[in-house]
Amino acid sequence: MTQLSPTGRIGVLGGGQLGRMLAMAAARLGLDTVIFDPEPDCPASRVAAQTVTAAYEDLDAVARFAASVDAVTYEFENVPVEAAKTAAAHAVLRPGVKALDIAQDRVTEKTFLNDHGAPTVAFRAVASADEARAAAEALGVPAILKTRRFGYDGKGQAVVRSVEDAGAAFTAIGERPAILEAFAPFVRELSVIAARAVDGTVRAYPAGENTHEGGILRETRAPAQLSDATRAEALRIAETILTALDYVGVIGVELFELEDGSLLVNEIAPRVHNTGHWTMDACACDQFEQHVRAVAGWPLGDPEPLVPARMINLIGSDADDWERWLKEPGAVLHLYGKRETREGRKMGHVNILLR
Amino acid sequence: MTQLSPTGRIGVLGGGQLGRMLAMAAARLGLDTVIFDPEPDCPASRVAAQTVTAAYEDLDAVARFAASVDAVTYEFENVPVEAAKTAAAHAVLRPGVKALDIAQDRVTEKTFLNDHGAPTVAFRAVASADEARAAAEALGVPAILKTRRFGYDGKGQAVVRSVEDAGAAFTAIGERPAILEAFAPFVRELSVIAARAVDGTVRAYPAGENTHEGGILRETRAPAQLSDATRAEALRIAETILTALDYVGVIGVELFELEDGSLLVNEIAPRVHNTGHWTMDACACDQFEQHVRAVAGWPLGDPEPLVPARMINLIGSDADDWERWLKEPGAVLHLYGKRETREGRKMGHVNILLR
Repeated sequence: MTQLSPTGRIGVLGGGQLGRMLAMAAARLGLDTVIFDPEPDCPASRVAAQTVTAAYEDLDAVARFAASVDAVTYEFENVPVEAAKTAAAHAVLRPGVKALDIAQDRVTEKTFLNDHGAPTVAFRAVASADEARAAAEALGVPAILKTRRFGYDGKGQAVVRSVEDAGAAFTAIGERPAILEAFAPFVRELSVIAARAVDGTVRAYPAGENTHEGGILRETRAPAQLSDATRAEALRIAETILTALDYVGVIGVELFELEDGSLLVNEIAPRVHNTGHWTMDACACDQFEQHVRAVAGWPLGDPEPLVPARMINLIGSDADDWERWLKEPGAVLHLYGKRETREGRKMGHVNILLR
Repeated sequence: MTQLSPTGRIGVLGGGQLGRMLAMAAARLGLDTVIFDPEPDCPASRVAAQTVTAAYEDLDAVARFAASVDAVTYEFENVPVEAAKTAAAHAVLRPGVKALDIAQDRVTEKTFLNDHGAPTVAFRAVASADEARAAAEALGVPAILKTRRFGYDGKGQAVVRSVEDAGAAFTAIGERPAILEAFAPFVRELSVIAARAVDGTVRAYPAGENTHEGGILRETRAPAQLSDATRAEALRIAETILTALDYVGVIGVELFELEDGSLLVNEIAPRVHNTGHWTMDACACDQFEQHVRAVAGWPLGDPEPLVPARMINLIGSDADDWERWLKEPGAVLHLYGKRETREGRKMGHVNILLR
């Protein structure tokens, strides 16, 4: 069980804003970060001790990168599994390949979750327009057709409103291997950010309540007001998943809360998560530090918030309001250093501390 | 009045832990940092977008560095004034040369403070053993003989216990231009971390109470319990100094509190300050972000703490206890990434949040 010294080096596959915030958390603890990303000027490169610019398919580069650090982690779940396996052969990889493998395919993920006692909506794997129609017939409509792989922020999805619709939906998502998911009659979207240490200890932040717009997270409020039963169930689900994956690091578990307070898992993200950004200013140990602690083989920190908080994503031109946010009492502005503002691009976020 | 865009670049003269924490605060706000330091592997270099490795005396290098950024600041008061002047000729320099010039010489500093209504102990400039004895005669003993320039963490100081002692003390500090300071019968050491924006706005964090050991800061507790009169006087002194210097940025003002609650200025540091590290975890906008905001020409942040805090410096082998601090509830560990532990070297600090 590798434990890093406080002058150790962590490698991060991926250099977007999550890698950037991980690198800063590692630096607060004395650690150096090496970023691996195909983009030379990626956001994380500007706060990291070193950056390796190469494609994830360049396994020689991945091997050299991994050999130069004490532990490797990743900031996104679409790291090619071959790259992760190569990293794991040359350094300790946390979380491991298994979490990636499962999270990259929606059918594998939901099957795994159900097998381990984490409930999801009903679903069916779909590989053709005919199968899409049959699945819609079986699950009922409305339902949502999603590509099995590489979906994020609502991309690669189509709503199926009738059985006849299902074939067109399959065409709309590019006739790729897909999953049809039954509609979840949820009243709220919640998420739990939890961590598991090398020794198996689990610590979870209180659940947040999320609002999405156009498939993109708009806002998280935390802690969410939950019944004791729902709070206990959210924690049970997170612990169940972390343990089943023999996971090390922070995970994001997105949940649907139904009218009766019961929970379904929407999806898991084997990494630090946008819905956990509120922890940066509301907790003594935020999700990034928590992940770094786990990856380093260190004890986990206290996930109890000092104050409640509201996190607002700054998407596209929202970030033009930076000066207004600087003047807002109790607001903490975070910008990701992205050179170009694009519609739908996450440019930063604001944490509003609710004293 | 230069105002940086959120993708601007700040240059920092000096790449120690203060430059490191400034670079991280700038990065949180989207800004890139360029560090200038003679040491290639200095702590700040590992979190900065770019590092220039050159001597402060290499004015061509300073000029090129300054021309490559939108604003320059410094992390220590012993930046050679020629380097600061060169930077100011190629970029906006905040704070300006005047603050450095004054803070680098204890006689100039105390004269300036008294001239502007900020009280200090009585003092005399001393240039020989004879003058040292005469000064001791005039000010009384005990008194403290200090080199006028380049003293920090108690270095370059000698206590004068009798008039006869004064000559030996002058020899002990290297027969350099000196200042004899009357003994201040203080009951507490306080400090105020305050900031002034380009538009003249002043914001001050509540004063902290400091404990030193062997001339090195050991601990700060903030907010210090002060009478209303003392609190108002601390703020008045900080505002007076900031305005008199036409200052832009964060300043540290060290104060002696006397038995009757009155205050004397011990010294000023024209930079972010060790006694302000508690703000990193206790305030929505810490001293590093506050300094970056001022340097960028942005509005200042809210200095009100969310919780009281206790900051403990980790000096030399204190940092070996890192794992214990990681386990301490409410403690936030900060390590500076220094490769080598040396006696008396500041390796990190811990903020204990007192909920």
